Amino acid sequence: MATKELIGNMLIAQSGGPTAVINQSLIGAVLEAKKQKQIKRIYGARHGIKGLLEEDLIDLSRETVKTLEAVAQTPSSALGSVRKKPTAEDCARIFTVLQKYNVRYFFYIGGNDSAETTHIINEEARKAKYEFRCFHICKTIDNDLRQNDHTPGFGSGAKFVASAFMGDNLDNRALPGVKINVVMGRHAGFLTAASALARVYPDDGPHLIYLPERPFAMSRFLQDVKRVHKKYGRCVVAVSEGIADRSGKPIASLFIKETDSHGNVQLSGSGALGDLLAGEIREKLGIARVRADTLGYLQRSFPGVVSANDAKEARAVGQLAVKYAATAYAHGSVAITRKTGKRYAVDYKRVPLKSVAKDTRHMPARFINAAGNDVTQAFVDYARPIVGPLPPVGRFKGLPVKRA
Amino acid sequence: MATKELIGNMLIAQSGGPTAVINQSLIGAVLEAKKQKQIKRIYGARHGIKGLLEEDLIDLSRETVKTLEAVAQTPSSALGSVRKKPTAEDCARIFTVLQKYNVRYFFYIGGNDSAETTHIINEEARKAKYEFRCFHICKTIDNDLRQNDHTPGFGSGAKFVASAFMGDNLDNRALPGVKINVVMGRHAGFLTAASALARVYPDDGPHLIYLPERPFAMSRFLQDVKRVHKKYGRCVVAVSEGIADRSGKPIASLFIKETDSHGNVQLSGSGALGDLLAGEIREKLGIARVRADTLGYLQRSFPGVVSANDAKEARAVGQLAVKYAATAYAHGSVAITRKTGKRYAVDYKRVPLKSVAKDTRHMPARFINAAGNDVTQAFVDYARPIVGPLPPVGRFKGLPVKRA
Repeated sequence: MATKELIGNMLIAQSGGPTAVINQSLIGAVLEAKKQKQIKRIYGARHGIKGLLEEDLIDLSRETVKTLEAVAQTPSSALGSVRKKPTAEDCARIFTVLQKYNVRYFFYIGGNDSAETTHIINEEARKAKYEFRCFHICKTIDNDLRQNDHTPGFGSGAKFVASAFMGDNLDNRALPGVKINVVMGRHAGFLTAASALARVYPDDGPHLIYLPERPFAMSRFLQDVKRVHKKYGRCVVAVSEGIADRSGKPIASLFIKETDSHGNVQLSGSGALGDLLAGEIREKLGIARVRADTLGYLQRSFPGVVSANDAKEARAVGQLAVKYAATAYAHGSVAITRKTGKRYAVDYKRVPLKSVAKDTRHMPARFINAAGNDVTQAFVDYARPIVGPLPPVGRFKGLPVKRA
Repeated sequence: MATKELIGNMLIAQSGGPTAVINQSLIGAVLEAKKQKQIKRIYGARHGIKGLLEEDLIDLSRETVKTLEAVAQTPSSALGSVRKKPTAEDCARIFTVLQKYNVRYFFYIGGNDSAETTHIINEEARKAKYEFRCFHICKTIDNDLRQNDHTPGFGSGAKFVASAFMGDNLDNRALPGVKINVVMGRHAGFLTAASALARVYPDDGPHLIYLPERPFAMSRFLQDVKRVHKKYGRCVVAVSEGIADRSGKPIASLFIKETDSHGNVQLSGSGALGDLLAGEIREKLGIARVRADTLGYLQRSFPGVVSANDAKEARAVGQLAVKYAATAYAHGSVAITRKTGKRYAVDYKRVPLKSVAKDTRHMPARFINAAGNDVTQAFVDYARPIVGPLPPVGRFKGLPVKRA
């Protein structure tokens, strides 16, 4: 299905939650497009499909390389993002707009919903016999896209989470008590699991990790905290915002009244789940110093805390999407695979849009311990190279002074 | 009051909330002590005065320079910290312990309460005619110690806050709405004010900054948010955890039931204030997308986000405290002053313990705008060199594509 000399304009857009490296993918794509002679103007749609529907487009061909490289280093979606999932009518309208601007190359950076949107738009083009190339470019800090060993954005989000727990464990060691940190991830626990990378010494936290992949029981949670607190005189806990009970009902929803317009409990941008868990510990275990923080939006957009591998790979998937579309495939998504061997190395491959769309993936069973309150060494080995080196942690030998 | 050849042991301890550079002061002091021949053993008390009262001491003389330097780079109090304010009996007991271990040099790293403790212990020694040298070593992310232009720990805490707002402003620009971030600082607004350093472009957030130094009125707050949201279609707000109404009652306490054992409302380690403000905006202004994060403990212990000046100055005050005690003064605190002139440079001076103890300082009026919802350029000029360079932010020129 090699494509040859399809001449026309290109349009690129960003969707869903921002990441620290989503602009690397954008700029990787734009710089590659500048090399491809058959691609004429390079348009960016502001706020994803919203900009497409409203014809709110900017001309990326007119940006200097200096600006492009500065944007690549900047977290969060530079074109603006959107949470809207298009209807069938929206997709038909989008296709009309693309035709109107003679867009022959379309790229959508986002998660599984964006892959689905790209697929539907491609179907519209196919039905209309409009010559068209389109690629989905993976991004999500949740790391929940199928076909991928890991997704661009996860490594940097995970680096923030691991760094946060590293510092917070030291804080908790200085002023002991129970500390709960609520981590993003409604259905997939990868980001919460990354807290395990913070451990340097055997008594380091997080001492307990709760993921949405395992049912959460309050009684069991309280037992776990009690046991750790007895052993270490302190306890650091990582909790995914999406933890749910045996029936799949989010723990947050059992106590939080607020829901969004779709009736979903709002998990991010609220400290309610952490406060709820802290309150239970205070009340049921009688531990005085209990604190909860919700790491919140910093996880996906903190400047300067970026995994070097993540930035490199995010750039590569953007670049390759354009290269594939211009020279090899009519449509698809660029997936990251991991090479076998001792040293960490990745490969990229084109996969069908449908194979990334709709369903997501979760933490595999081999990454979660039997008790469901921690991760395994296999997860740590998997995640460490994606995240890259973390700041070193020094500790005194601490030889006791003989009592006088 | 130059001291001469007082031979004996040294003891050092850390108190209060940890910072990212409190170990720089500790290691600065220890390394200087190793140079001073009259100082024999170097003891560290675990968890501040708690370790002193319980004779829980470690021998820092036996730590390698490699370990000491690794600890210096590590955030949070390596000796452990404590929130306990000693009674008069505690101070008498502490003095007995110091005598027992032939401690002639005592150093206490902490805030105004620690300066007060050091002063009381010094008084005990004076009454007992015990030859004794003691220094308080400043630290606090709150930046609220008298006599100091700024305090060690503030620069790094402020760098974290500014970075967080920088990323969060970009996030809010990508997915517009109202975003509130609650920042540490019960009585002094310096750390919240540091959010202003995040601004690069004229429309950048934080668009509103609320400090504990100015009375907070909900109606005025809602008007401010409404105005900014109308202008930019979005609004990023920095709020100090300590904002209080006209009568001085913390806003948090008006709605939060939970108090600590002293009856104080717990401000940190809870998302309640942010959730409260977000709820008011949703309800009264009818804005759909409103989120609140509480930056929490990450502000004082995040590894890798350290101001270079802050680290250097924290090291210097520790080092100088020992040098002063060994060669020049019997007691005092080391304060940071700023040299006049265009280029940022600091000086250090010995000040009396009592001049730092008890009272704290607040944001001066010239750092706060007339409306009480922002800081002035004078504050930005003051804070920028303390914090140091922040990550660069790139932005597209964004030339609109002509409608087809």
